[in-house]
This record gives sequence, structure tokens and C-alpha cells, in this order.
Amino acid sequence: MNAPYTSLQFAPRAMPAVMLEALKARFGERCSTALAVREQHGRDESPIDAPPPEAVVFAESNEDVAFVLKLAHAHAVPVIPYGVGSSLEGHLLAVQGGVSLDVSRMNKILRVNAEDLTVTVQAGVTRNQLNNEIRHSGLFFPIDPGADASLGGMAATRASGTNAVRYGTMRENVLGLTVVTAAGDVIQTGTRARKSSAGYDLTRLFVGSEGTLGVMTEVSLRIYPLPEAVSAAVCFFPTIDAAVQTTIQIIQMGVPIARCELLDPHAVRAVNKHDKLTLREAPMLLMEFHGSPAGVAEQAQTVQEIAREFGGEDFEWATTPEARTKLWTARHHAYLSALQTRPGCRCVTTDTCVPISRLAESINESVAEVEAEGLPYFIVGHVGDGNFHLGYLIDPNIPEERDTAERLSHQMVQRALRLEGTCTGEHGIGLHKMGFLVEEAGVGAVALMRQLKAALDPQNIMNPGKIFSA
Amino acid sequence: MNAPYTSLQFAPRAMPAVMLEALKARFGERCSTALAVREQHGRDESPIDAPPPEAVVFAESNEDVAFVLKLAHAHAVPVIPYGVGSSLEGHLLAVQGGVSLDVSRMNKILRVNAEDLTVTVQAGVTRNQLNNEIRHSGLFFPIDPGADASLGGMAATRASGTNAVRYGTMRENVLGLTVVTAAGDVIQTGTRARKSSAGYDLTRLFVGSEGTLGVMTEVSLRIYPLPEAVSAAVCFFPTIDAAVQTTIQIIQMGVPIARCELLDPHAVRAVNKHDKLTLREAPMLLMEFHGSPAGVAEQAQTVQEIAREFGGEDFEWATTPEARTKLWTARHHAYLSALQTRPGCRCVTTDTCVPISRLAESINESVAEVEAEGLPYFIVGHVGDGNFHLGYLIDPNIPEERDTAERLSHQMVQRALRLEGTCTGEHGIGLHKMGFLVEEAGVGAVALMRQLKAALDPQNIMNPGKIFSA
Repeated sequence: MNAPYTSLQFAPRAMPAVMLEALKARFGERCSTALAVREQHGRDESPIDAPPPEAVVFAESNEDVAFVLKLAHAHAVPVIPYGVGSSLEGHLLAVQGGVSLDVSRMNKILRVNAEDLTVTVQAGVTRNQLNNEIRHSGLFFPIDPGADASLGGMAATRASGTNAVRYGTMRENVLGLTVVTAAGDVIQTGTRARKSSAGYDLTRLFVGSEGTLGVMTEVSLRIYPLPEAVSAAVCFFPTIDAAVQTTIQIIQMGVPIARCELLDPHAVRAVNKHDKLTLREAPMLLMEFHGSPAGVAEQAQTVQEIAREFGGEDFEWATTPEARTKLWTARHHAYLSALQTRPGCRCVTTDTCVPISRLAESINESVAEVEAEGLPYFIVGHVGDGNFHLGYLIDPNIPEERDTAERLSHQMVQRALRLEGTCTGEHGIGLHKMGFLVEEAGVGAVALMRQLKAALDPQNIMNPGKIFSA
Repeated sequence: MNAPYTSLQFAPRAMPAVMLEALKARFGERCSTALAVREQHGRDESPIDAPPPEAVVFAESNEDVAFVLKLAHAHAVPVIPYGVGSSLEGHLLAVQGGVSLDVSRMNKILRVNAEDLTVTVQAGVTRNQLNNEIRHSGLFFPIDPGADASLGGMAATRASGTNAVRYGTMRENVLGLTVVTAAGDVIQTGTRARKSSAGYDLTRLFVGSEGTLGVMTEVSLRIYPLPEAVSAAVCFFPTIDAAVQTTIQIIQMGVPIARCELLDPHAVRAVNKHDKLTLREAPMLLMEFHGSPAGVAEQAQTVQEIAREFGGEDFEWATTPEARTKLWTARHHAYLSALQTRPGCRCVTTDTCVPISRLAESINESVAEVEAEGLPYFIVGHVGDGNFHLGYLIDPNIPEERDTAERLSHQMVQRALRLEGTCTGEHGIGLHKMGFLVEEAGVGAVALMRQLKAALDPQNIMNPGKIFSA
């Protein structure tokens, strides 16, 4: 079992004064040791508290990043890449001290190759910034983890979100990278070609490596033509199971649905209150269809027929872009909205993902268990992928609630693994799921991951203590 | 520049007698040292000759593979995984001696999970075997490199082929693996979930590793519902450029075409003769559309309009499954058919892949160069991916022809790299493109690949001398 948050050990390595001096000499005010700045960089959206990093450096170029890494390498001091701080699993916490390397000022869109449907950005560019930039060309980048995350951070956690059922995840959509290695060398991985068999797939080794192998400073991505037609609809079901069964059949029939999201009644109630909506407080699928007008109509008809079989009501369509935006904004507020239903609470979020045929079992049993405990919770899910998040809303001052949430979370993971799924569909391992990773991948595979880490980062300076215990 | 074939150095490492005895003791007749068997396993479809391996072992289980690797690891003897021998870049050649580990008897389809659209097979299962097995369930596996390759081999070279433009390559379609590591440990990578953020992406590290990091013994794959409607058509163009421009526009408009193949007049002439067809001997696109009947009609109409703009003639439809099969069989015979146009010749095949907007430049200049040299050639191409194969048909007894082909091939690669593409879209590096890999990825990235190799295979026993010079 995973160590509970409260038992985490922190063992900061001291940064030699000479290193801090060298950083200050190069970066001036772009190297900060102010407590407020360090504290801001020493946390993320996880419910974990840790001491802040010793310093924060704001990088503006590959050369800046290489300078920091060469220095850190020489002094064996940890470096934690930082984008916008939206990760969920304690990825950004300075559990071994060191430097937070903030790349948010590396926010240039370097090239848009509309004719190839590719774009190259610096790692600090956020997904909304990118979409605002390319929308006028009739293009979009679909990966949508909810938060306006940096594209480097999204690559680092192998993020996905609401559109992954149709467009894939960061794994499928990163074409190539510029990486600064742990030794401070700048390398390129991949090309702008759609496919390649040229040597080891370094791109996908770095995608999902959570900052533990090097710093991704530039990312080349696939982008897509804005669909000719887009329709969004909500549909309400008598039970969560009915909504899930509908989803399973949609996927099994190969309907190219673009988004297929579940909200349970707790989540619907929360967004109604937060976004002043009047959605029925019942299990709900929020769906979107992309394609030609005829194609979208055809998909929608198929899905309505399936939904009806499982007692789903007729679709309520969001026909205008404004109505669609309102719904998706509400969906993206679900986490925040749910937190507000229990003042002072913190959320322990789960992220299991299972093969689609196992999704009903995965959700239904998890719901039964949390209902039996009486802990407040909510569910939102990228159910088209077999992925959902059950959030336990705990009072951080009641240790029993934290313990219960941790125990239920562990049971969920064990169930997902039994169902041949994964402990994390999109959030990553970070600090909190290291034990789950061993349960999932096995000791042998994790040992192999450690060998890779040791080969590329022999000083263990890159975000140490994440993915594996230090 | 790459070393020409003729200057390759072979440095077999001797296998200690004690190792051969141990292999014979365990495997009996499944360990062969017969010259005919060794020679059959000491070549592939590349035009390279090398000494055969010292022994061939026919593995039937993970335990067999682990036994061989533990022994090889102890004695530092090379092991070369062997599927059906259809690779093109000298991957199977025993350039450092050792054992050819034939997994073709590991040919069981272990599980079909139709309801999840996944299948798990042993590495020796071929793609046709798999498709014959699942067709009756209304399912298919789309990746189609032409040859009836083993799925382990296809994973090892990150293969793709005619359907990749719609369904992706092995990179996108392998969900997980059973791998026997160089030390002889059996590990699992990935799960049957569609996505995961659990640690490093070991699956994609092994996919495309060309047998140099371990032996893939089991492969979990995505499969797809057979499309409701399928239509294939050919269309002829006044010039290769016109066919390529048509392709570029199809892709840029986001038409979800399932196959989009170019044959130049030489290739058409060759397949006409070989398959007794009467296709017009002009630049030709061979296309296939998958979807609902309405969707397929819509795609076909869009593509016809585009083709007409570039002087393409009206589609000739292959409406029956038999007519479709005839066309695709002819396409798959193109390589063999072309070889037969020049008795006694060998083919130096290229495999560049570039961003779609650069495809016309990539093809047109390559054609101009080979035309200027007067060397016989043909072109077939997965042009929807920006990938094509120009085959130089050389007389192996005329060294000048080989030199010319090598020089032109190198020029093509340099052009592809200038156009931000790759030296190999789907065949891999093997023996022949090691120099190209350095030109493409750079010294730093290749050094990093070598670090990975050294970490996972410290004795350098896994298919040594491939991807990197030994």
C-alpha cells in the first residue's frame, strides 16, 4: 500500500552557497529566494504539504535551463521543472530541496505549420494560449485536461482530458521535443514527420516522465482542423450504471464521439450551484460530436438510440457556441465546485482507467464502497476512455477521514488492476502513487524504469523522489 | 555518410562450447546448427550478405526465451530475435555471431477481448493469422506493412503500412508487452487500458527498438470494428506531382481517408505484368474509404473534387470485396513485381517520411535525380503519411550501380532531413541506416540512446551492431 500523505519523509539536500551565488550572478532578479515565491512554487493542486524549494529560477531560454542543469549536476542539487503549478500528485514539491525551475516565461509559440497541422511551442505556453493563437487559422489543439496547463507540464504528465476519446492523449500528439538533459546538453527528439522508425522513441520516453529525466523546453504538437460541425448535448439517466452502459456501447460500436463525460448527481449539483445552471441532478452524460454536418447528425442519432435503450432521456442540445462553452466551462469547474460544497475540505482524487467493458464494475463498486462509508464524494469521468475521477471530500482536521479516503482509493486501484487497468489514466504517479506503480507494473518493470533513470540522471537531480521513492 | 554495404565489418564473438551444450540439452532438436537452418536465419530482405548465426533456437514459451537470454547474458553471446524474416534493413544478420532466437512457434492468439477492442498474441503470430482469427467477430487489425510479418517483428520495427494514415502505426496500436529483458527477467509493460500515466512508457521504448533492448514475447494490440462500408478506387494523374498535390490537399482538409497509396508508372507497369492487370501506366493513387455508407460517400465525393482540380481522372471503383482484394494484392506485390522487371537485380529501398506539405518537393527532386542517373527504379508510397519508397533496381555485379544508388539514397535522406522529416518512416535503422540516424537525431540524442542501451543491456548481447555501430 502507498504511504499516506502524513507519513511522507522530506530530506532536503543543501544547496552550496557557491551554486546560489552562480545562479544569482547569471539570473539576478530572475533567481528568487523570497519565501512567498518559494512557497508558491513548493506546492501544486495535491493535498500534500512540504517544505518549499531553496530557490526559484525563472528561465527564459534553452541556455538558461542548460546553465541551471550543468550547475545542479556539478553540485548534485535537485531541479524541479515548474510550468503553471496545476499538477495534482505532488509533482512540484521540493521533497529533497533544490531549485524550482520555472519555465512559464518560455511562452513563445515558435512556429505554426498550418499546412502540416503541426505547431512548435516553448514549454511554458498554455493550451488556451495556443488555441487562442491558432483559432483564426481554423485550427485547434484538442488535449484538454481542464486546467489551463502549460504544454510542457501536459507532456510531462502524459495528460489527456475530455477530447482524448477521439484525439488521443499527449502520448499520441507530441511529435518531438527539445530536451535539456540532466547533464545540461540540449537535444532534439523526433521530427515533424507523422511517423518514424529512427531509433528509440525518446519523445515518448520523456512524455510522462514527470520531470525526472530532463527538462522539456520545446514541444512540437499535432494540431487539427476545427471540425466543420460541432454539436454538444446532455442526456440524463436513471442510474450511473445506465450512463456507463450507454458509454460502453458507444465505444464498442466505434462511434467517433469527440467527448463523452460522466457527471454523477453530486457533481451536477455542485456545478449547478457554482455556475448557476439548472441541470437535472441525475447521472448525466455530457457529449460532443465533431465532423461534417451529416456525420455529426449520424453520430448523434446512433448515440440517442443507444441512450434510449438504457433509459436515457432525449438529448438536450447546446446548439450555439455560447451554450456549448457554458456547459464545458461548468464541466471544467466541477472540481472547484465540488470543493465548495464542503467548506474547508480537501480533495483526495482518484484516476483509475480500465478497459471499457470493465468500466461499469469499476465505477459501481467504487460508488458502493464510498456510499457505505458515508464520506462526501463526487464523480466526473472521461468515461469514453474508461477513465474517471472519484473525489473524496475530506476534512483535513479529521485524520479518520483521510485514512478512509486513502483506504478506499487503494481499494479502487486494486480493483482497477484486477480489471487490467491502470492506477492513473492521466494525472501521473508523482509523490502519491509510487506504491500503486509497483503494484501495477511489478517490481521488475519498476526496476527497469529505475535503470533508465540512473542512466540518464546519475546524480538523481531531476525531480528526485517522484515516480520512485528516492 | 553511411558505410556502403560492401564495407561492413563482421566480428563474430565465439560461443563457448558449454553454452551450446546447455542449449542442446534443453532444446534438443529445437536447437539447430545445421547450415541450411542457420543460413535461412542469417538473412532478411535486405541486400546485405553476412555470415550466419552459430545456432538457431526455436522458442516455444517465455521460459524458453528467458533460458536463452540468461545463458547468453552469462556468456556475453549475442541473441537475435527472429520472426518471419521479412525485415528490410539487415536487422536479422548475425554481424557479431551468436544465436538466432526464432519465436515463430510462439504463434498463439492468447486472448481476444472483442468487447474492449483488444487482443493479446504471442510475438510469432502474423498479421494475417490474427485477421483470419478475428474477422468472424467483425473485427480487424489494420496495420499492414505488406509482408505477412510477425506482430513481434512489426512491434520491433515500429511498422506501419497502407492503413497508417487512418489508424496509426504500431506505436499507436500496441497497448502493452511481455518482454524478456537482456538479463532474462520476464516483465510486463502497459495494461489493457487505453491510456495511462503510470511511470515511464516502457511499451513505446521497446516498440521500435529492433530487438536491441530485450525480446518481446507477447503483444497486446488495439483492434477495430470492421467498417460498415468500405470502398476502394484508383485514380490516374498526368504527373506524379499532380497525384502528390491531391494527396496533400486530402490530408490538409482532414478527410479521414483509410488508405492513400501512390504508384508511379514503373510500379504500375510492374504489377500489371505480375498480376495480369490492365491499369493505365500513369501515376496512380490507390485509395480506400472506411465508414458508414453516407460517410464513405461523402469522403469519396470530396476526394474526387480535389483530384479533378489536379487533372485526376474520374475514379475507377473496386466495388466488390474481390475487386478490392485484387488491387491490394497487386499493391503488395509491387516490390516483388518490380524486382522481376530486371532479372538478377537487387533493390536498394529508401523510406523517407516528411511533413505532408514537403512531400511534393521530397518526391519530385528524388525522381529528377534518379532520372538523371538513368538507374532503373520504381516508387510506391504511403503518401498520406508523407512516406514513400523509391527502390533503386541495381545489378549487384556492377559496383558503380550500387555506389550510385547509395549516393542517391543519401541525397534523399539529406533532403528529407532538410524538410524536417525522417530517414525511415517504417523500416527501421538496422544495419544500413546507422549513419543516417546520427545525421537525423544528432550526436547528443544518439548518445542518449546508447546510454539507454547500455543500461538495459550492459553485456551488449541483444542484437548488437544494429541501430548503433557496435
